[in-house]
Amino acid sequence: MKIAVTGAAGFIGSNFCDFFLAKNFDVIGIDNLSTGQEKFLEQARSRETFKFHKLDLFSENERLIELFREVRPDIVIHLAANADVRFGLEHPRKDLEQNTMVTFNVLEACRHSRVSKIAFSSTGSVYGEPDIFPTPEDCPFPVQTSLYGASKVACEGMIQSYAEGFGIKGYIFRFVSILGERYSHGHVFDFVKKLLANPEEIHVLGNGKQKKAYLYVGDCVNAVWTALSTQENKINVYNIGPDEYVDVNQSLDVICSKLGVTPKRTYSGGERGWVGDSPFIFLSAEKLKKTGWAATMPIREGVARTVDYLMANQWLMEGRR
Amino acid sequence: MKIAVTGAAGFIGSNFCDFFLAKNFDVIGIDNLSTGQEKFLEQARSRETFKFHKLDLFSENERLIELFREVRPDIVIHLAANADVRFGLEHPRKDLEQNTMVTFNVLEACRHSRVSKIAFSSTGSVYGEPDIFPTPEDCPFPVQTSLYGASKVACEGMIQSYAEGFGIKGYIFRFVSILGERYSHGHVFDFVKKLLANPEEIHVLGNGKQKKAYLYVGDCVNAVWTALSTQENKINVYNIGPDEYVDVNQSLDVICSKLGVTPKRTYSGGERGWVGDSPFIFLSAEKLKKTGWAATMPIREGVARTVDYLMANQWLMEGRR
Repeated sequence: MKIAVTGAAGFIGSNFCDFFLAKNFDVIGIDNLSTGQEKFLEQARSRETFKFHKLDLFSENERLIELFREVRPDIVIHLAANADVRFGLEHPRKDLEQNTMVTFNVLEACRHSRVSKIAFSSTGSVYGEPDIFPTPEDCPFPVQTSLYGASKVACEGMIQSYAEGFGIKGYIFRFVSILGERYSHGHVFDFVKKLLANPEEIHVLGNGKQKKAYLYVGDCVNAVWTALSTQENKINVYNIGPDEYVDVNQSLDVICSKLGVTPKRTYSGGERGWVGDSPFIFLSAEKLKKTGWAATMPIREGVARTVDYLMANQWLMEGRR
Repeated sequence: MKIAVTGAAGFIGSNFCDFFLAKNFDVIGIDNLSTGQEKFLEQARSRETFKFHKLDLFSENERLIELFREVRPDIVIHLAANADVRFGLEHPRKDLEQNTMVTFNVLEACRHSRVSKIAFSSTGSVYGEPDIFPTPEDCPFPVQTSLYGASKVACEGMIQSYAEGFGIKGYIFRFVSILGERYSHGHVFDFVKKLLANPEEIHVLGNGKQKKAYLYVGDCVNAVWTALSTQENKINVYNIGPDEYVDVNQSLDVICSKLGVTPKRTYSGGERGWVGDSPFIFLSAEKLKKTGWAATMPIREGVARTVDYLMANQWLMEGRR
């Protein structure tokens, strides 16, 4: 089995590489190293069945087509993306280029080399602000509230059309936020970084009551592989998330407790941390559970483990927003 | 009131120009004339309040921003698009470029010149193959079956995000197929052209039982204006279609009767005319009707009127696929 992973040097991508290498698959890792970390690939690079290609999926689409023609992957795990849901309005073009257009380039390469399956990391943000919780995959046609979510919906639609028109099987996974080893951006990252700089005070975007579900990266990788290896529909759409959620304050409780700090909390106020922030993300994973998957790590334990990881890898927090 | 119309030289766009000019609005028509027809603008050009700009929205995005900054339209009617749902698989990049990326360019120009409202021609194809008929706007989150539909979903999401983030009001209209004066592509066009070449025999894609709703262009223009002038939500999503549908055979009956021909009918077979064709398109316009709009033209009369128009304008059928 040959598996290509885009965004291989990222938090989630590198975890996928290690997972597939442990299964003795051939893994082709692709990353432009713009936000990916060489260090995340150290374990993968120690395996002979791992090959890494530094390649920019936006600008080097012809090289990607050549690469796929040469290596002929069976499955492509497409994770490369702009993963910043929060700063979309500051650079509106970024989600279009790094998500929508990059996904088109990956699909074209898949088509030219007859890849049999593509798995895609979509997001619970595609539901905008849903009325149903936990939100199922077939909830009412949503309205987008962020350019990030909009770009992921665009990618989903293209993957579905390629599955319909060109015979590749599409696996679309709508992730909640993922936590765990190599986690390198998001609210736990921001809080830990700020608390290390100033343990006396912490500023929270919004009113701290935004409710979010987080999943441990090991559970996420297992979920994707369970669906990929058991489902054979033309188009397979699955939410991936836990059966619980916490609010931002509760998550901050765990972080403060792990760090042994008791900062004064101030709030920017409002239900949303920023324009396009979703005050409540909680996805139904019932469909996925029917394939045999289950989450194993409680959210608070996932947050705690992530804090441990960040404390042991403080180099990650140096100089990053 | 200043209104910019993209795709102004197209079938629907030129009808919008005439409609707004008759209301004594200033109209800025924009078209790259790749499929638009100069002739469609003859009536508009006779008005002093009409200005035309030949401009390619894909490649000349900077010029568009300058133009909008100069003329400061209040409302943008964004109709410019690749309108071919059928040939998406032959050139997968076209829908991405002409629909998704062009819409991004238009949104950026709107943002830079503080346009207050954008109206967008989306499509019933965004529902893929729905289970509910007539299909309401909030039907279950659909799966895309064509690159055309996928690109329109991408546009909808970007417009919604710009409305959320930048304050422009978004009006998204999911059209059925539109018929009437200046109609210049689609199934009536294809049938009339083929029957003029050979009145003895006609080949039908699919089994002829595909059910579709068609709307008269005058009803479509009225629908858009009714919503634009009465609704003030941040994001407004409306289906536009009639309360009835016909199957391809019934539509062909009207065409043959108008042309006075009785061809032998042959069928390619299958429920779908092509990969990605929707065997049944019938949208609920109940939401729009609550704003005061109603369709006035029965489908069969719309088809008949379209045949009359094509027979009086056979130049349109020369040399076009």
